Amino acid sequence: MDEFSFIKSIKPKTWHQPTLVKGIGDDAAVFRHMTKNVVTAVDTFVENVHFSQHTMTLFQVGYRALAANISDLAAMGASPAFYLASVVVPNSLSMPNLHKIFSGMNAIAQTYNMDLIGGDMVAGESLTLSITVIGFVDEEKARYRNMARDGDIVFVTGTLGDAQAGYHILTHDGDYKNKSYYIHRHRMPTPRVDFARALSHLDRIALNDVSDGLANEAAEIVEASGVDICLYADNIPVSPSFSQFSSALQRKWKLFGGEDFELLGTVAADKWPDIEAAAETTNTSVTEIGRVMRCENETGRVYLYENAQKKILNKDGYTHFK
Amino acid sequence: MDEFSFIKSIKPKTWHQPTLVKGIGDDAAVFRHMTKNVVTAVDTFVENVHFSQHTMTLFQVGYRALAANISDLAAMGASPAFYLASVVVPNSLSMPNLHKIFSGMNAIAQTYNMDLIGGDMVAGESLTLSITVIGFVDEEKARYRNMARDGDIVFVTGTLGDAQAGYHILTHDGDYKNKSYYIHRHRMPTPRVDFARALSHLDRIALNDVSDGLANEAAEIVEASGVDICLYADNIPVSPSFSQFSSALQRKWKLFGGEDFELLGTVAADKWPDIEAAAETTNTSVTEIGRVMRCENETGRVYLYENAQKKILNKDGYTHFK
Repeated sequence: MDEFSFIKSIKPKTWHQPTLVKGIGDDAAVFRHMTKNVVTAVDTFVENVHFSQHTMTLFQVGYRALAANISDLAAMGASPAFYLASVVVPNSLSMPNLHKIFSGMNAIAQTYNMDLIGGDMVAGESLTLSITVIGFVDEEKARYRNMARDGDIVFVTGTLGDAQAGYHILTHDGDYKNKSYYIHRHRMPTPRVDFARALSHLDRIALNDVSDGLANEAAEIVEASGVDICLYADNIPVSPSFSQFSSALQRKWKLFGGEDFELLGTVAADKWPDIEAAAETTNTSVTEIGRVMRCENETGRVYLYENAQKKILNKDGYTHFK
Repeated sequence: MDEFSFIKSIKPKTWHQPTLVKGIGDDAAVFRHMTKNVVTAVDTFVENVHFSQHTMTLFQVGYRALAANISDLAAMGASPAFYLASVVVPNSLSMPNLHKIFSGMNAIAQTYNMDLIGGDMVAGESLTLSITVIGFVDEEKARYRNMARDGDIVFVTGTLGDAQAGYHILTHDGDYKNKSYYIHRHRMPTPRVDFARALSHLDRIALNDVSDGLANEAAEIVEASGVDICLYADNIPVSPSFSQFSSALQRKWKLFGGEDFELLGTVAADKWPDIEAAAETTNTSVTEIGRVMRCENETGRVYLYENAQKKILNKDGYTHFK
């Protein structure tokens, strides 16, 4: 099967999005204007840098790559609508295997009624996925990281560190509790689209998705909003069986781990009942983990209360721009 | 300079597009709805597959990559507005060199008042640019390749084969006429945005950009429109000094060469004066090179009249999906 035939084989036969005018099959895709704003982001994943076929099937590689991008839309409060997938295909990857990647993307796309509307497929040495997502959000309702204010409650959805634990389990032999749970969290994360959408009535809320670790995401919020954030280490939610890992690993994964694709947010204290209501409606756990404070220095800082001490929490790990 | 600082250094300080709500600096970019349709496409370029630092500077690599994407918007009749740039950065590429790529993209972006609104930067072995472009077009005015009709005049802008000639000159020592002209056409092509926009009053016109060669682009039109196209080999426009190359090379480059980023179009014969007027207004040369005919077989074919013979012109070279 040549590339031309492959493209035909992955071209969707039906479309979900009513705004779509022209999908795959011309120089570009076209969609209609709406009364909403358009939200777009791109993320790139390189084999043996961002994923490995030793720890994931190709179906999961595709699923997770698109999930990570959808998570960016969730963190903007947007509804996913479209995606474009660009793939660098090494000679070693057969067409059936390439199909598996697209099947994985398609599986999570279906969940959100997203349409594949374009892409590119080129030869190269390293399998590389570059995915552009497009969504819609009501005017004035995009959730920026510069919207944290003094006195806000800081919260996070779900549990942190699970994805890193899953990766650890896959790469370190051993007896582990809830093995398949952690592995699933690493391979097939759930972006928190529904939860963020359930908060669309709020006038103000800051949101970031935890792609690069809690410390890094909190740092982005303080920097953009010009505030300080205090986090309470003991309140950071982890899975019940997380205690099976060493204290050092637990701390590393929950603070710096990332790739859980949970949402970190800040909201006015009097709107906390709205957060709890959205959590219940969408079956999402939400935990208060800190407070936003007036900025003490020139630039915002993240502090961590841990073992009765207040520490400066520096961001760690890699960063990437959006 | 770490990646975080690099991103800050390339983040535009001002924006051109009035529809932009949020550019770089959050989970995703946001732009406002308009009364127009949104057009989007992505293209990926891998070092030593799609470009080489032996024949181009990094500034030119960036310039040309974005030019190729803008050409897709031109072929849709759209006005360029935004781009997102995702880069796989090998260890061997220094931050100043990465800056050169972004400077090249910025140079052509400025020409069209395009704003850089997002991207991603990741580690990897091969320097890879994946660019997503977004533009606007009036409702019902996107120029699809399925819009060719029996009796249409087939035309092309500019001259074909120049980019391939430029690449040949760069990779084969020798004495050449108009050397810098051909090399410039290879390194810094001009997408035909202005010409396509000058035709926005027409109800119907089919357009494709000549990225993969005339034969391939014509094949896409006949397939999408269910028509045949007859091309006249002698009418295909080439540069005056093109005759310095062998007949075989001339034929190969003008029919299959691609990467000239000219526009191939078909339009009703009675609208030909409109094409000529747009050509004059935008200082673009346009040449009639054939006719659209009723489809003789089940699927459309491209025929070439050459040396008093009618041949089937098969597409050649690589293809990529949009």
